[in-house]
Amino acid sequence: MPGRLYGIGLGPGDPELMTLKAHRLISGAQVIAYPTLAGAQSFARSIAAGVIPADAREIVMDVPMTPERTPAQAAYDQGAADISEALDAGNDVICLCEGDPFFYGSFMYLFARLSQRYEVEVVPGVTSVTTCAARAGLPLAARNERLTVLPGPLPEDELRSRIEGAESVAIMKVGRHLSKIRAVIDALGFTDQAVYVERASLPDEVVCPLNDAPEKAPYFSMILLTKGADPWL
Amino acid sequence: MPGRLYGIGLGPGDPELMTLKAHRLISGAQVIAYPTLAGAQSFARSIAAGVIPADAREIVMDVPMTPERTPAQAAYDQGAADISEALDAGNDVICLCEGDPFFYGSFMYLFARLSQRYEVEVVPGVTSVTTCAARAGLPLAARNERLTVLPGPLPEDELRSRIEGAESVAIMKVGRHLSKIRAVIDALGFTDQAVYVERASLPDEVVCPLNDAPEKAPYFSMILLTKGADPWL
Repeated sequence: MPGRLYGIGLGPGDPELMTLKAHRLISGAQVIAYPTLAGAQSFARSIAAGVIPADAREIVMDVPMTPERTPAQAAYDQGAADISEALDAGNDVICLCEGDPFFYGSFMYLFARLSQRYEVEVVPGVTSVTTCAARAGLPLAARNERLTVLPGPLPEDELRSRIEGAESVAIMKVGRHLSKIRAVIDALGFTDQAVYVERASLPDEVVCPLNDAPEKAPYFSMILLTKGADPWL
Repeated sequence: MPGRLYGIGLGPGDPELMTLKAHRLISGAQVIAYPTLAGAQSFARSIAAGVIPADAREIVMDVPMTPERTPAQAAYDQGAADISEALDAGNDVICLCEGDPFFYGSFMYLFARLSQRYEVEVVPGVTSVTTCAARAGLPLAARNERLTVLPGPLPEDELRSRIEGAESVAIMKVGRHLSKIRAVIDALGFTDQAVYVERASLPDEVVCPLNDAPEKAPYFSMILLTKGADPWL
């Protein structure tokens, strides 16, 4: 009997925001797997570090940072092959994912490669979107309000048209796109309603009005705009 | 010293999908609070039932189901007054919320009434959106894809225009709006890409193509449309 592959969402960063199910599965893991970006430390692994058994085998997929897709594809191909080998040997494999595996997570590349051949279970996790809202004290959506999630790397024109027609907006992966996003929000006149959140739930978290945001934003930063929220039922 | 109010997300229904932090805080609760709808059982309380201490005091806000706002407002006003009393007596109050407190959650009505006067901490939870995606094996969004969350009660015209211009779409609170939503998705030609999920993560969960959805949907049901997802990095 081959093992089962688990894609496990670990939540936004605070290890206490992982689910009981994630905790149970990682505590009992024989084999864990996770990607790293160009040799950097894995954020997902750092969230789970206190729970990973000392004798668990670790499959690391080192994904190069290049604009071309082929080298990254090769890294996931190799990772999928290594995971297959462990599954074929009868071991379950626990793949660690920051946030939620299917919400901008790299686990979907493994899911696409392996879900036809193996039993795969995806364990959802707390996303950065609701964590940022919680930390900022900003209700995201009530009743019949809409929520739009936009990645910061989108082109300026597209960001503008998507923000303009939306109610609540969460802009993910702000990073080096911060000044472009600020310009769009300024031009639309929404700066006073925008909040900047960096590394939500971690000890070095930053929450402030967009106007006070630092000039340089890390990849794990977000801008929340809640134009429509009407919490006064 | 007044106590602290916690708004705690319990996740989508499976008690194992609550966070370690939710578990810790509920386990130690002296006072818990939650709304019920027109005397029905509280879904949030049922998720937490195995963790609530036997001697915890329970503040129940019974919210009437009427189209007018005033009776519901009065229920939250009374709940806020009861919670204030407990906080003023120095007790922390744990408010139980299915899913995430700030994502279509009623906690925001208490937050609006109490956050100016008391310390409030919102603990995010796993939402039904990523849970439905996990259970359906459908990655929601990768790279620069957009995700739109729409409540099913929106008018037909608005649903149509919002779905038409979107990539991935999650339609929440399907319930009695199922046939209207199906008609919109059919007219747009997206029915083959649509999945129906009911009571995700619970023992009586239903996951099926929209074409095979039952005629009657409960309130806790969702339709996922992933037109743009390209997981084959």
